[in-house]
Amino acid sequence: MSDTPDELVEATYVALCKHGYASLRMEDIAAESSKSKGTLHYHYDSKRELLYAFFEYLYDSFVARLDDLDARDPDEHLRALLDTVLSPRDDDDTEQEFRTALLEIKAQGPYDDGFRNQLEAFDRLLHDRIESILADGQERGVFRDEFDPDATADFLVTILNGAQTRHVAVDHRPDQTRSQLFDYVDRHLVADAGASPTGERSE
Amino acid sequence: MSDTPDELVEATYVALCKHGYASLRMEDIAAESSKSKGTLHYHYDSKRELLYAFFEYLYDSFVARLDDLDARDPDEHLRALLDTVLSPRDDDDTEQEFRTALLEIKAQGPYDDGFRNQLEAFDRLLHDRIESILADGQERGVFRDEFDPDATADFLVTILNGAQTRHVAVDHRPDQTRSQLFDYVDRHLVADAGASPTGERSE
Repeated sequence: MSDTPDELVEATYVALCKHGYASLRMEDIAAESSKSKGTLHYHYDSKRELLYAFFEYLYDSFVARLDDLDARDPDEHLRALLDTVLSPRDDDDTEQEFRTALLEIKAQGPYDDGFRNQLEAFDRLLHDRIESILADGQERGVFRDEFDPDATADFLVTILNGAQTRHVAVDHRPDQTRSQLFDYVDRHLVADAGASPTGERSE
Repeated sequence: MSDTPDELVEATYVALCKHGYASLRMEDIAAESSKSKGTLHYHYDSKRELLYAFFEYLYDSFVARLDDLDARDPDEHLRALLDTVLSPRDDDDTEQEFRTALLEIKAQGPYDDGFRNQLEAFDRLLHDRIESILADGQERGVFRDEFDPDATADFLVTILNGAQTRHVAVDHRPDQTRSQLFDYVDRHLVADAGASPTGERSE
């Protein structure tokens, strides 16, 4: 087996960051690899198919990152997951370019079933991982009993999407959302917070 | 004064919904109005300038809608505002198309200073209105004292962005976010909720 597809996935990432989705052409991707445009067309019919393959790669590596999260309990686990989604992996410029391209592709959701399916898979993965951490935390008494893990996971996925969108659209800092989310977890999800009605009252 | 710009703003809306931002051309906008492409170019140099004018119109009508919100107190006021942002104004299809075009334009934020400025103005408007409702509610004892109106408004703007993005990307229903947000307001912002540590305990 040749390693060409892997190299093309890497080239797709670099070209996508440089050119954005709308103006990306097969030759831009070829220019970032050692392969010719002909070789690209041998493996993939169109820029869209290359992007599907790229998304599959992203999905697999996102699963791997979520599997690798290092945490001693569900509270730490949840925060590590939120951190993973909100923190840039690369240098800031590349990350910003990449998130911008992703937002363009999200706007393709209604028009392109292939992207729609992949976007739904990401959305579901994130939701399901968060839901299972929340349910696990409730079982172990780390999180409060009164919230619904499914609805709360859905809410958190919405917030993560909002952080990514505002980062691109108006350069809103993801670490600001991170600290608001951690505050939300502290106040509203973690079991001991507010569990002491006899606690100090400052005068 | 001629009413041509107003008609063109309306035509821009219809054409944007039909074609999306990326593939929108001046002639698509002309096709939705009674004017020729020549008249369009007389008023506006490019599709981008027409879109700037369209955004200004959107901004003004958004301000008018926020000014017109009908509410007896800050709690109702906040919910009416959240409803305004989350509820479709038009039939569902047009609304979905419009939100998709808006998401495409959000992805232009990093590349286009004109759009960036307008996106920032919208973001700030929404934040400032929410912040002042929250501060007003705290003063009147309707909302709890312990949260920061600025940070909470910022968090709510992030959530509203997330609802819009997921609606487009994965067809997530905005009324689901609406009910989660109302629940958040009930549990965490409204003053009386949870203010009674001596309340019933179910066994």
